[in-house]
Amino acid sequence: MPSPIPTTPAARALHQRFARLSAIEDALAILQWDRAAVMPDGGGEGRAEQIAVLSGLHHDILAAPETGHLLDDAETEQGAGDPVVASWHQANRAEMRRRHVHATALPRDLVEALARGASVCEQAWRAARPQADFALVQQPLEALLALVRESARAKAEALGCGLYDALLDEYEPGGKVAAIEALFADLETFLPDFLGAVMERQKAKGPANRPTGVFPRVAQEALGRETMARLGFDFSAGRLDVSAHPFCGGTPRDVRLTTRYDDGDFISALFSVIHETGHALYEQGLPADWLDQPVGRARGMSVHESQSLLFEMQVCRDPAWVAWAAPVWRERFGGQGPEWETETLCRALTRVEPGFIRVEADEVTYPAHVILRFRLERAMIEGDLAVADLPGAWNDLSERLLGIRPPNDRLGCLQDIHWYDGAWGYFPTYTLGAMTAAQVFDAARRADPAITPALARGEVAPLLGWLRREIHARASLLSTDALLSAATGRPLDAQVFKDHLRRRYLEG
Amino acid sequence: MPSPIPTTPAARALHQRFARLSAIEDALAILQWDRAAVMPDGGGEGRAEQIAVLSGLHHDILAAPETGHLLDDAETEQGAGDPVVASWHQANRAEMRRRHVHATALPRDLVEALARGASVCEQAWRAARPQADFALVQQPLEALLALVRESARAKAEALGCGLYDALLDEYEPGGKVAAIEALFADLETFLPDFLGAVMERQKAKGPANRPTGVFPRVAQEALGRETMARLGFDFSAGRLDVSAHPFCGGTPRDVRLTTRYDDGDFISALFSVIHETGHALYEQGLPADWLDQPVGRARGMSVHESQSLLFEMQVCRDPAWVAWAAPVWRERFGGQGPEWETETLCRALTRVEPGFIRVEADEVTYPAHVILRFRLERAMIEGDLAVADLPGAWNDLSERLLGIRPPNDRLGCLQDIHWYDGAWGYFPTYTLGAMTAAQVFDAARRADPAITPALARGEVAPLLGWLRREIHARASLLSTDALLSAATGRPLDAQVFKDHLRRRYLEG
Repeated sequence: MPSPIPTTPAARALHQRFARLSAIEDALAILQWDRAAVMPDGGGEGRAEQIAVLSGLHHDILAAPETGHLLDDAETEQGAGDPVVASWHQANRAEMRRRHVHATALPRDLVEALARGASVCEQAWRAARPQADFALVQQPLEALLALVRESARAKAEALGCGLYDALLDEYEPGGKVAAIEALFADLETFLPDFLGAVMERQKAKGPANRPTGVFPRVAQEALGRETMARLGFDFSAGRLDVSAHPFCGGTPRDVRLTTRYDDGDFISALFSVIHETGHALYEQGLPADWLDQPVGRARGMSVHESQSLLFEMQVCRDPAWVAWAAPVWRERFGGQGPEWETETLCRALTRVEPGFIRVEADEVTYPAHVILRFRLERAMIEGDLAVADLPGAWNDLSERLLGIRPPNDRLGCLQDIHWYDGAWGYFPTYTLGAMTAAQVFDAARRADPAITPALARGEVAPLLGWLRREIHARASLLSTDALLSAATGRPLDAQVFKDHLRRRYLEG
Repeated sequence: MPSPIPTTPAARALHQRFARLSAIEDALAILQWDRAAVMPDGGGEGRAEQIAVLSGLHHDILAAPETGHLLDDAETEQGAGDPVVASWHQANRAEMRRRHVHATALPRDLVEALARGASVCEQAWRAARPQADFALVQQPLEALLALVRESARAKAEALGCGLYDALLDEYEPGGKVAAIEALFADLETFLPDFLGAVMERQKAKGPANRPTGVFPRVAQEALGRETMARLGFDFSAGRLDVSAHPFCGGTPRDVRLTTRYDDGDFISALFSVIHETGHALYEQGLPADWLDQPVGRARGMSVHESQSLLFEMQVCRDPAWVAWAAPVWRERFGGQGPEWETETLCRALTRVEPGFIRVEADEVTYPAHVILRFRLERAMIEGDLAVADLPGAWNDLSERLLGIRPPNDRLGCLQDIHWYDGAWGYFPTYTLGAMTAAQVFDAARRADPAITPALARGEVAPLLGWLRREIHARASLLSTDALLSAATGRPLDAQVFKDHLRRRYLEG
């Protein structure tokens, strides 16, 4: 359906206003990609200023009283006619209202203080992490947390919810601590025994070493691009580049993926490319005509993460896919020997091992990393944990949840950028995404029997077609719960994810 | 000198306001570089919108009545104290006022219409040029010219000057048609006979063929980067990439150069890199502390072009430099044979030959290309030439000024992007830049006797030191005339350029 044309003056004015906001957001996304992927160091100071100024202008337009008046007017105008069109407008207005409320909750001074505080703290973190010296970043993190808490209080009041929910809502619209607690409690009960059983069983199986050797970057990049294309990535609407930390940025018609290459391990870059491609397919699958409106953008971080993990964890570690891919990889890198066999590769790709670093974690231990961060950030937001006590609290919780204690803060509370960059309330979406991925993939395979056999031929067209229809094309028309119910028949529960883990790790 | 701190409230508010404008301009510069160098096609539509929205926000702030009031207040406040600081503030305010007047002259609707008209016309031009079909672009160009003339009328009234001067002032602050006419008339008298003599003399000399062969892109790029570094380019504050048309964009601390590679001709890319490096050195040499203020930015296009041409035309085609460079090039590409000899290379690098394409022209015939465009665009702006008559007028004038008639419009009036992209009043700055380059290089060599012998060793440090002090460090503190007088002892005249041509082409 093309983007419906608003029929009242207030709705038209809102439409234009949010199209301008969308253009500013897209400009910011490109400037952020540029900073991570290509900017020389000398540009850093100026770029921080460019981003701060554009963010300030964006905030001014979004929070302007005029925006609120237009929303009031548009909401009282009763749109007659096509109910599909009416619900499109309603969903768009709801998303506009949510953004407006988030923006008006914060005075401009606080917005700018947050941006600057995050820049200062992130810079301190960049120095502190390699030295594993938390003291270097403690003070800026305290200052930033104070601003984040101020922001949480202001948003909680505006949204009428708790402090953590107020922050979570920015990344996961409608997300609630209570629901996450229930899902995570389920996993926390399930995982420890399950992990023990997996580790036991793993011992009994053969070796799970990744192929070793020297994997030239050019060959890795070529394989990455080919895999992207095979998964459906449209290179006329996106790029692949290199950055210190892989991410998917840019805009829906100009998606910027990044990865990093390790000469001694092609699987690492390949699977980070596959992960980011999952994000990219979601962006590229959003309805082209709606992109300048809030309703036309991705639903939220858990759905986004479900699309990346669906390909990274579900599809491309599936034995059928690996059986198809193994000969390609062998041919590409001249690989031979036991670690290039499909079965060994499958074991290597599903090897479980508690470790210190979240981004290197397998899908069985990953939730523990997320639960740890969720508990700690919640405690800090609610004033129950001081920044000074973070390293100790981290290490204690790591011991309890993962059974291992980081020997230093580089492998502990300094490993992730999120808090130091001002992103609080984001972490749970990783595990919500993993659960959503399992549920979505399961529903897709039940709905279309062509999906599974195609994977064995290295083809994802049937799967992508289903995702396009059921997830991507719906953009933000539905709430996350409603979207998941529409696509899979029920809201998120942990069962499908647990079933997937059991099948893969105890039966596979 | 660090950026002086404004001492009155109005001056402080202005300072902040122009720092924000500067951040928006820098963001736009990066988005424009991105579009030319790395953006996939799918991003085009969204990028046009991002650029239009940011340009509109920029215009709103710059043209706001509040900006005018602050300027009025700041101009009447008498700053006591240090005269150097006072003149810095005065120069900054003058540049602020100039920009404010340009912005207020145009209603927002016209600004947006110009941006859209330029996008439409440029797109039509991209289709028309390869087909040499002027009819495809005639109507959009007529529409765009109508908007440009409306803009010229509005600016002429605001600035109290002629139509062409009003457009020229945007690229060349303070530039005047009358002065350009005088300089160009001088060249027009001088060049035809001179060209004849050069062609005659050239025949008598040996062959001037460029080295032929296959020059791998990787090797060309490596040589380009090495040459940039040798000329003083700071890679921690800039990059080199590829685009369809070479340019120097980005920001002073994040300069983005581009070039394009021809497998069969390394000289083409190398000298385009040298040209853009000259621009980059100017940007990188601007005082770091002043960059967020108008006074801290480059003076204007003729000074900018003088810095690029100084390196491209004066320094790196100088026999002393070529003698130093030739063995490096031979070694780099395994070159041997007569066309790799220093003398042949010198002849190839200073070969004169009237041709249809401006960007391929030598420095003797280049002014004729510019004079042609200057005459035609002036006539169109002043209503004396209709767009429909442009192809014929172009061809007639080409015959008169260059002695050759383009066989089609691709080699004629469709060759340059400028008019189709809305840039009217820009062309003269190329030849003003060539004359300025000759005058600046001559003054530098007279001022510091270490400059010339250093070139023979492939070293530009003495020259760059002089340029930094005399040109770059002055940013926009002085008018173009005053800057040139301060650096070279006199305002621009054509004599030094003519002397340079005579020496190189009739005596060398």
